[in-house]
Amino acid sequence: MKKYKDFRNCSVGRTLEVLGDKWIFLILREAFFGVCYFAGFKANLGIATNVLSDRLAHLVEHKVLEKAQDKSDARRVKYRLTGKGLELYTVTLALMQWGDRWLSGAKGPPLVLTHKTCGHSLDPVMCCGHCGKPVKPFDVEWEHSPPYK
Amino acid sequence: MKKYKDFRNCSVGRTLEVLGDKWIFLILREAFFGVCYFAGFKANLGIATNVLSDRLAHLVEHKVLEKAQDKSDARRVKYRLTGKGLELYTVTLALMQWGDRWLSGAKGPPLVLTHKTCGHSLDPVMCCGHCGKPVKPFDVEWEHSPPYK
Repeated sequence: MKKYKDFRNCSVGRTLEVLGDKWIFLILREAFFGVCYFAGFKANLGIATNVLSDRLAHLVEHKVLEKAQDKSDARRVKYRLTGKGLELYTVTLALMQWGDRWLSGAKGPPLVLTHKTCGHSLDPVMCCGHCGKPVKPFDVEWEHSPPYK
Repeated sequence: MKKYKDFRNCSVGRTLEVLGDKWIFLILREAFFGVCYFAGFKANLGIATNVLSDRLAHLVEHKVLEKAQDKSDARRVKYRLTGKGLELYTVTLALMQWGDRWLSGAKGPPLVLTHKTCGHSLDPVMCCGHCGKPVKPFDVEWEHSPPYK
C-alpha cells in the first residue's frame, strides 16, 4: 500500500501503515472468528481474489499473520494470527463496540460476546493499567517522549 | 466511500463503513490532538485538499464530527468531535498502543500519555466491564444475538 508523509511522529500513523485499509481490518476480524483458509476469507468477505492475495501477503510480510501447513492436507495453506496479530484483538473489539453502540439500529448488536473468565456477557472497557479506571479522552495528557523532543 | 457486500452481520463491518479509510483514522487522531481547522488537518497530514474535504464531509455526515463557528472569527469553520466521535478514543488508543508495542524501533514510543485521573503514565488495558480482568482473544466466545439467529 502507498505510503504517505505523516508530519506527526505517532504510533497511530505507524499502525495505519500496516492496517491502513478496510480489507485488512476485515481479514483480521475473520481471523479472530477462526477463519484460516483463503477460501474462507474470500467467501465471507466477497473480496476479489487478487485483493485478498495482496492483503494476506501484506499481513504475512508484517508478521501479523503467518502461513502454516494444514496437518490434514499438506497442499493447503493456513493463515494464523501471530502473537503480534493476536494483540490486534483490542483494536477489533474497539471497532465492534463502537458499531454496537452507534450503528446497530432497532435490532440491536448482531453478536453477543461472553467473557469465559467470569461467565458474564462482555462489555469491554478501556481502563488505565495503573488505577483501573475507564480512560476518557479529556483525562489524558500527552507529550513527546525524550528521544522525540 | 464504496460500499462492499459483507456476508457477516457484524459491527466491525458496520464501523468500517464509517471509518474504512486510513485518512479517516488520521483525521480522528488529529481531532483527538485538538486540531479543529481545515488548515491544521491539511498541514499535519500532508493530505490533498479534495481528499480532506471529502473525508471531513463524510465524518460530518456520519455525525462523528460537527461543524461549529469559530467565536473569534465567524468566517472560520471549526470541526469538533461529537459524543459519537469522542467514543472513538478507544479505537485510537488501541491503534496507538499496538504501534507503540510493535513498531517503535530503537527510539521507543514517540508519545508519553499521562492519565490525569491518577497521575501515572497511561498504559491502557481492555478490560471486562464485569470482572475487570484484561480481555484476551481466547477468553471470549461469541454467538448471534436473538434477532440475528
